[in-house]
Amino acid sequence: MLIEIEGIDGVGKTIQCELLCTWLNSQGISTRAVSEPGGTSFGAGIKKTLASKIPRDRRSEAFAFLACKNQLYVEVITPAIAKEEVVVADRGQGSFLSYNLAKGASYDELISLLGLATCGIKPTLTILLDVSVEVAMHRNWLHDKKSRFDEAGQAFFEKQRSAYLKLAHQTQDWVVIDATGTIEQVGLVIQGHLTKLLPTVRTTK
Amino acid sequence: MLIEIEGIDGVGKTIQCELLCTWLNSQGISTRAVSEPGGTSFGAGIKKTLASKIPRDRRSEAFAFLACKNQLYVEVITPAIAKEEVVVADRGQGSFLSYNLAKGASYDELISLLGLATCGIKPTLTILLDVSVEVAMHRNWLHDKKSRFDEAGQAFFEKQRSAYLKLAHQTQDWVVIDATGTIEQVGLVIQGHLTKLLPTVRTTK
Repeated sequence: MLIEIEGIDGVGKTIQCELLCTWLNSQGISTRAVSEPGGTSFGAGIKKTLASKIPRDRRSEAFAFLACKNQLYVEVITPAIAKEEVVVADRGQGSFLSYNLAKGASYDELISLLGLATCGIKPTLTILLDVSVEVAMHRNWLHDKKSRFDEAGQAFFEKQRSAYLKLAHQTQDWVVIDATGTIEQVGLVIQGHLTKLLPTVRTTK
Repeated sequence: MLIEIEGIDGVGKTIQCELLCTWLNSQGISTRAVSEPGGTSFGAGIKKTLASKIPRDRRSEAFAFLACKNQLYVEVITPAIAKEEVVVADRGQGSFLSYNLAKGASYDELISLLGLATCGIKPTLTILLDVSVEVAMHRNWLHDKKSRFDEAGQAFFEKQRSAYLKLAHQTQDWVVIDATGTIEQVGLVIQGHLTKLLPTVRTTK
């Protein structure tokens, strides 16, 4: 089972992934936390270039992300699922789609590429944490990440948020959670959605 | 115009690319030499991971090569062609195809990915320099590159040579040149093929 937690920078994905893993473990369920584009040695190598300020075309960047993604699916996610672990992904297929849609890529092209790079595995559930870009900006500012949110950044994150919401409405197995509440409140809502899936986890031996 | 010089390691691609550029320049024709996966800052960054011994799945590697290739087409090849330079590529689309076919990839998948990463540009002419794997091995041994040719390597290069020859027979605008002769002899044969294309170069203003 693969659970992806998605949303623009500042919505609280990383802390919710940690809370979710802790809670699943407390229910006796083994978890595997993953985060792209790292997570493998090959991905970590490529990530150095992705994280640099070296200029790149949108599609060059997408292929580099797909290199990391494919390696993560082959090396980590597929084996974890085979061991019946619940994989909890801090960003995943939804990020690839929303980011590249916001950059102007075609949906059909992205879906076709994703299919090649994910070993045919689709998320069981994608949880979209949603807040306004202003709230996300403020949270990033509190965590001293404000430099990423210049004016161009804000316009881009508005596009990415729209792309996320459109994906959530047109794709099966996505839920949108209002993430303006406290960490604990949002965590409880996520647990509620997982509880619906848990019987499946326990009977798919 | 894009000319690709192809063939397994040891056939003499690099020296023939240099000779071809020198000869074209002597004819008053501007050239641009390119070689993947480097050739751009982004590609050079990715190349560090590609050239490492970090284990990787075939498809992860293919995506990383496509990231470099797309950036080279966007940043170098497309602008050079727009300036009516003759682009001479030391390996290119043919290498991507033959290498990945030899690794077991599907032809249709590779063609589809190549189409995305090459700005819709196809080589005007692909020159396949062909020698037996034994001759290529001997040439590499002479140049102290023998460590790449262990037993597994030899079997792989046999597969890649077969893939190259199959591509040459099924694809338009490929020529196969017997590259067992001297550097000068092979160079003259290449010039002969280019001479047929040159009137086109000179009238496509």
